[in-house]
Amino acid sequence: MSTPAEARAAFRSGVVATTSGWADGYVQANLVSVPREHAYDMLLFAQRNPKPCPVLDVTDAGSATTVLAPDADLRTDLPRYRVWRHGVLDEEPTEVSHVWRADLVTFLIGCSFTFEAALAESGVPLRHVENGTAVPMYVTNRKCRPAGRFGGPMVVSMRPVPAGQVATAVAVTARVPAVHGAPVHVGAPAALGIADLARPDFGDPIEIADGDVCVFWACGVTPQAALIESKIPFAITHAPAHMFITDVRDIEYRT
Amino acid sequence: MSTPAEARAAFRSGVVATTSGWADGYVQANLVSVPREHAYDMLLFAQRNPKPCPVLDVTDAGSATTVLAPDADLRTDLPRYRVWRHGVLDEEPTEVSHVWRADLVTFLIGCSFTFEAALAESGVPLRHVENGTAVPMYVTNRKCRPAGRFGGPMVVSMRPVPAGQVATAVAVTARVPAVHGAPVHVGAPAALGIADLARPDFGDPIEIADGDVCVFWACGVTPQAALIESKIPFAITHAPAHMFITDVRDIEYRT
Repeated sequence: MSTPAEARAAFRSGVVATTSGWADGYVQANLVSVPREHAYDMLLFAQRNPKPCPVLDVTDAGSATTVLAPDADLRTDLPRYRVWRHGVLDEEPTEVSHVWRADLVTFLIGCSFTFEAALAESGVPLRHVENGTAVPMYVTNRKCRPAGRFGGPMVVSMRPVPAGQVATAVAVTARVPAVHGAPVHVGAPAALGIADLARPDFGDPIEIADGDVCVFWACGVTPQAALIESKIPFAITHAPAHMFITDVRDIEYRT
Repeated sequence: MSTPAEARAAFRSGVVATTSGWADGYVQANLVSVPREHAYDMLLFAQRNPKPCPVLDVTDAGSATTVLAPDADLRTDLPRYRVWRHGVLDEEPTEVSHVWRADLVTFLIGCSFTFEAALAESGVPLRHVENGTAVPMYVTNRKCRPAGRFGGPMVVSMRPVPAGQVATAVAVTARVPAVHGAPVHVGAPAALGIADLARPDFGDPIEIADGDVCVFWACGVTPQAALIESKIPFAITHAPAHMFITDVRDIEYRT
């Protein structure tokens, strides 16, 4: 198995792959880089909406390093990035040195991989992992509390959990408050404004077995959706499933 | 007993008193207002040092209202304020309408009253409350992670806890992560750089009984000290022990 440093070195040298299964046991993070001019609104949006936006680190402007992995270079060490201009996807490069700016502030935001590891260890089945599909995600009728240019609905991920294990799933994820934490909703998808579970807004649909209950967690897609809808002139994000691998062990975020 | 709204109305009409014992069971908050120009650094400092700087709300620039108490006016509803110019205390008025500015961003930061209520309910004695003195606070050798103009050492509060109740004190305060959370240090004051417990940097000394262990929590004086040392041209804070009383119940911040 790769270490975080080995994984980052591979991506830096040109390997392109989704990061699922790399450096198992270490925290992976979403990346969002915005010009300093917009960083306050992004940070305030996260402060006001901590469940969907669990910020693990914010860099100084222009810095490509993070306390989460001191030897890493945030411009080159992810397998794939997305560059956004005025809310429109402009390119999907494998490194971003050519578009880097001295005024960029980078947000590293928690990812559900961290709490899925905790669920799996507690024996809670992860149906989408068993199926090899992406977790289904839904836009809800719950509005985030806006901050400046950033706002919009909360996006949730859904995992079907056997009814007898729902309490375990709640307790286990409540112990990871830095990475989404406890579910925001258990059962009753219509109350979240989800009309048809079979048609997720992102990810793949998943079969719900007899005796499974739909459990909804706040999802890290929320800040990305807010970022894109803000139409700020320039931003960089990771490409979906192509995350930043940190040197921090999953267990360090458990209370 | 007063409700939060009654307490705020009293302070607005000119009553001046420390807020200890007012609106029991409701969260009281530290207030820090800084010009928008410095708000990003303050918010980033809090994000980087969440244990000493538990931010409960951040207002929009110029707004004197908060989601923590929608009917309150932050310019008039605290019993006493402090106005700082270039890091120097300039006045201690009972309302701040006359110095209010359209670019002020107000931070409401958690206060140890909230977790002391949890300790008391669990039967952990609060020696400084028994004595009617202020909790002793110490500047430590631990540096906060700086953000722009804000930095400096972590300040801790110390409560002597009977050895048989230290585990309870840890567990109970760990359940209030939004307000300082679990202790940062148990026993061994010298390891924090505290040479003489009898000479606290803030507050009053406290006798340590046989069988008591010194338990240290991150303290909300930390961001205030950072603010003052930053010497930014203008800032408003609450006066010590003259807090903002919110409409939020203490219990809502327990996990």
